[in-house]
Order: sequence, then structure tokens, then C-alpha cells
Amino acid sequence: MTNDPNRVIEQLGIFLPSRPAPAANYAPTKRVGDLLFVSGQLPLVEDGTLLTGTLGRDADIEQGVRAARACALNILSQVEGALGNLDRVASIVKLTGFVSSTPDFFDQSKVVNGASDLFCEIFGASGVHARAAVGVSALPLNSSVEVEAIIEVKKI
Amino acid sequence: MTNDPNRVIEQLGIFLPSRPAPAANYAPTKRVGDLLFVSGQLPLVEDGTLLTGTLGRDADIEQGVRAARACALNILSQVEGALGNLDRVASIVKLTGFVSSTPDFFDQSKVVNGASDLFCEIFGASGVHARAAVGVSALPLNSSVEVEAIIEVKKI
Amino acid sequence: MTNDPNRVIEQLGIFLPSRPAPAANYAPTKRVGDLLFVSGQLPLVEDGTLLTGTLGRDADIEQGVRAARACALNILSQVEGALGNLDRVASIVKLTGFVSSTPDFFDQSKVVNGASDLFCEIFGASGVHARAAVGVSALPLNSSVEVEAIIEVKKI
Repeated sequence: MTNDPNRVIEQLGIFLPSRPAPAANYAPTKRVGDLLFVSGQLPLVEDGTLLTGTLGRDADIEQGVRAARACALNILSQVEGALGNLDRVASIVKLTGFVSSTPDFFDQSKVVNGASDLFCEIFGASGVHARAAVGVSALPLNSSVEVEAIIEVKKI
Repeated sequence: MTNDPNRVIEQLGIFLPSRPAPAANYAPTKRVGDLLFVSGQLPLVEDGTLLTGTLGRDADIEQGVRAARACALNILSQVEGALGNLDRVASIVKLTGFVSSTPDFFDQSKVVNGASDLFCEIFGASGVHARAAVGVSALPLNSSVEVEAIIEVKKI
Repeated sequence: MTNDPNRVIEQLGIFLPSRPAPAANYAPTKRVGDLLFVSGQLPLVEDGTLLTGTLGRDADIEQGVRAARACALNILSQVEGALGNLDRVASIVKLTGFVSSTPDFFDQSKVVNGASDLFCEIFGASGVHARAAVGVSALPLNSSVEVEAIIEVKKI
């Protein structure tokens, strides 16, 4: 039996942000068959602030974790927008977490846990996903983290 | 109704480059079911020049946009090679744009638009895709941009 | 006719490492339909050593190739864990190779060949895959290389 994600979100007091519009000529999500591809989301929080800065220089692990969690909330918001309701999610398939990193910052895994943990909290066993976490030289608008996702949609 | 991509390409006067051979022991495309995975393409232009240099240091946004568009043309060329005809494309599913970036270059979205815009011009609504754009420390052969793609193939 | 991967592995004297546990709240693999997504694997070798260092500064191409091959062996080990037997692999669909790189290291393709070549040796024509190879600023635990994969599973 899977969790009801909406109930978990309510119980945890999680507030899904409004859906950020894509910054350019592409879509926030694209579905093909049972797979929903979610565009890389930036750590935009509800008050409109973007969590910025490079890990290893101007952001610490805790800030990175918060940024990754913010990306994950935006992913959820986009998925809800695409599917109408989060209860249409069958499982979280894959996350890729890009962490803005100096050449001597090596804790990308800890940072991206901010996203992974959220999906596991909300979707339980169905939230457990494959993942890659890497450090990149820079991200759009000086974002600290960018996370993209592949989601499995329930067959009707 | 979808565009006829071949007609649009002709109307726009777009010239698809010859297909670059993979630089190593892998294939330019791999199909599984309805999905065609296209290997990361470099910004090789028709005269054999590779568009090189790091954004934020030796290439500006306009050059980056041109490089991203060159990658997209190579993707199209590879897709045509794999499917025989671009009219077999059902939709563009996902692009990942890797932009060679200094740590203080934050316009990866603008750069990767060079690829996104081309797919939307040629395929119309079917060309609208999910996307991630990130800045990386370096790319093969000092390329400015590398773009990979997932394409949905029409069922016969 | 496809190779029997187990026989090739035996003939080549290849030893699959024990399966590294994920470093966090995610899974080493996730299957959806015929696709098996394998989490980014680090170059952990059998004696427990992690192959570390940045290409262009503290690791040379040969060391990078060895690291990429180590990542590929860990991918195979995870696939075997997920499917029970490597003969359930229909094909290798896609690799993404992330190479820890200084801004002036441009041989990511040669490095990632360490992974690509292994899959082609073991699976023959079915091992030929789509691929992207990029240079990143840093990787978890100072790994030299991280490789993720998408595998096609045989229909029963």
C-alpha cells in the first residue's frame, strides 16, 4: 500500500510553492507513456527568493540541503500541475542533483539528500529513486542547486 | 496537427550538418521502445570548425547560443540518420544542455535556448520539451556547449 | 545472437566488486517497465579504495580511464543485484560520465571510454550505447569519475 501523498504533505505542514514558469522556450514537464520528465528546477522559495551561492565558498551544507529541498518542492508543484493530483504518481524513478561547487567541495551527496529525503517522506517506498549527485561550476541565476526528475505515472 | 519538420527546415533554409562520428566506443543514438536517446553532441559546424571556449571567459552569450544551436543541428542530423526521416519524430522529450562555464557565469538558460528554440521552430508544439541547463567546468575538445536529447518516435 | 555476459566476464577474468550501498536515502537502481535506471556509481575498487582526484591536476588520463572502468564494474554489480543475473540485460541504453576536471582538461571522452569499452567487451553489440561525457567541478568524496546508466531489461 502506498502513502497518500496529499495527506502526508498536509500532516507534515508542507506548503507547495506556486509553479515557477520555465525561464525560456521549454516546458516544466513532458510526458511520454508512463514517464513524466520534469525540467531542472531551481531553489526558488515561496517568498520569491532564489537560494544562491556556491557550496564550498558562499553556502554551507545546511544551506545546500535547504536549496535541494526547495528544488524538490518545485518538482512536486510541477508534477501536481502536470497530473492534476499527486496521487497519480506511481513512483519517483530518478533524480539528478547538480550542486554548484568549488573544486574542493565533495559533499554533493549530503546536499542532494535534501531532495531525496523529501520524496521518501512523502511517497514512502514509492519515493525511493535512483540518483546521481554531481558538482558543477555554476548554475542558472547563481542557484546553489538544480534538481531534475523522472516520475512514473500510475496507469489509469 | 504537427508541422512537417522537413518543410520547415527547407523554409528556414536550415542545412543539417553531416553526421559526426562518435569520438569513441559508443553510438550516436540508441533506441529502446518509443524512445531514442541521442548522445551528447558537440558544437561542430558544417565547415568542420568546433565552437570552443568557456562562457564567462572566452565566449559570450551570443557565441554560446550559436554553439547550442550547432549542437541541436547535430542532434537533428543524428536523429535523421537513426530514423531515416525527421517526420518519424513524435516529439522532443528532454534536452540536457551542458555549458562550459566559469564559476561566475550564470546565463546557462539563455545559452541553451539556442537549442530549445530550434526544436520549437522546427517541430512546433511537439518540439516543446523538458530541459535542464547547467554550467560545467570543461567539455570534450574545449567545446563551449554539449547537448544530449531524448526523442519520442512515432508508433508506426 | 548476443554474448553470454557471464561467460565473457569469466573469460576476461573480470571480478565484479561487492555492491556499494547508496550513500543516502535513495536506491542503487530503480526499474520502470523495461528500463533499469542505475544510480551514479563512484570508482570504488574491490579493496575499498576510492579512486580520487581531479583530471588535469592530480589524476592523468590513464588513472581516469581506470576510474571510469571501476564505475562501470560497480554498475554491473548493481545490475546483477537488481536483476539476479546479467543475462537478463537486453542492452546498455545510455551512459552519462561525469569527470572531475580542471577548466583546461578536455579529454573527458577518452576517460569515459574506460566505461564504454567495458560494456562493449562484455555485451558485444548489445553493449553499444548512447553517451554523454562532461567535465564537472567536483564529485562526491573527491571521486575522479561518476558514471550513471540506463539499462534495457529483457522481456521475459
